[in-house]
Amino acid sequence: MPQPLRTRVGILIFDDVDVLDFSGPFEVFSRTRLVAGVDSRRTEASAPYEVFTVAVEARPIVASGRLEITPTHTFEDCPPIDILVVPGGFGTRPLLDDERITSWIAATSKAATRTTSVCSGALLLARAGVLHEKRATTHWGALETLGSLDATIEVIDEGRFVDDQVVTSAGISAGIDMAFHIVEQQHGVEVARETARYLDYRGYERRES
Amino acid sequence: MPQPLRTRVGILIFDDVDVLDFSGPFEVFSRTRLVAGVDSRRTEASAPYEVFTVAVEARPIVASGRLEITPTHTFEDCPPIDILVVPGGFGTRPLLDDERITSWIAATSKAATRTTSVCSGALLLARAGVLHEKRATTHWGALETLGSLDATIEVIDEGRFVDDQVVTSAGISAGIDMAFHIVEQQHGVEVARETARYLDYRGYERRES
Repeated sequence: MPQPLRTRVGILIFDDVDVLDFSGPFEVFSRTRLVAGVDSRRTEASAPYEVFTVAVEARPIVASGRLEITPTHTFEDCPPIDILVVPGGFGTRPLLDDERITSWIAATSKAATRTTSVCSGALLLARAGVLHEKRATTHWGALETLGSLDATIEVIDEGRFVDDQVVTSAGISAGIDMAFHIVEQQHGVEVARETARYLDYRGYERRES
Repeated sequence: MPQPLRTRVGILIFDDVDVLDFSGPFEVFSRTRLVAGVDSRRTEASAPYEVFTVAVEARPIVASGRLEITPTHTFEDCPPIDILVVPGGFGTRPLLDDERITSWIAATSKAATRTTSVCSGALLLARAGVLHEKRATTHWGALETLGSLDATIEVIDEGRFVDDQVVTSAGISAGIDMAFHIVEQQHGVEVARETARYLDYRGYERRES
């Protein structure tokens, strides 16, 4: 059986990215299967997503808590991205004025079918102009900063995520809920629910947003 | 102000370890602070835990979905571990007969104050003899295997985790709840609750086990 074309999920990583910000969506997308059960997770035969990390350069990234991750791709060799995930963490702050990052986000977002952020990753989206005149959210500690970066953003201070074409999620763990929302949109409630059951994740059935 | 002595959390990693199995507890322990708020997370001044990964050898580990992690320590250079975390994933299966792993788990568990597992990490604990005559749980897909590895284990098929001195958690995302349980035991409900709020994690207030 030929492998179906998979949707490419590219997750930006950088020094001081928050570990759960990127690993939550990484887990949800990389463990989603169109065939139910444990065994389908042993291979990628029914995996609708191809998930990878991408960073500016080909050197290990030191995430929060000093977890060291080697990116799958760099900006130079990155394949086209269908779903862009921009996570947050304290490492977003120095990047707000890093034009390599913000212009890459702007260009990648334009070519992608979905652009998403987790936590303070929304600040990078705002700086890249991606949230102009959109409703958006972020970590509760960054809501004010988000509004200050682009006065046209309608900052939403409740719910797990806001979907206004661009999908921004609330703090850290809310990225898991955001990812399940995308899975549900693209593959239906049953696939999302079964993947949540595989992850033993209760938040999906209790979803609020 | 001198830095307080921190509790060392050592998380075992290996090829095909499940990403959220290790990153969930990593996040909870590494983001816990005794001082509330966002700013306290910028430094480790009020961090009660020092969290690191450990692997057999000093080479990058390829986790589920091909996430590449460089371990902080190897078995050779690992400092004493106070809280041992053994995550799961498909990579546990070949390790069940790897004596370097099971004897390291047995010895490290004996020296640690707490031994914990996430998901099918419980199978490795069972093989190391750590769950003998204890109540324990694991991912719903591994419950039968857990009982088959040591007939003296009372296998529990409900709840987010089972605390019978050794703390075993249910599938994948339940490792987050297990970590909050330890934080609560060691530092009280307020520190656990405030850290859950920092992570925007709703599961702690809704805890079941």
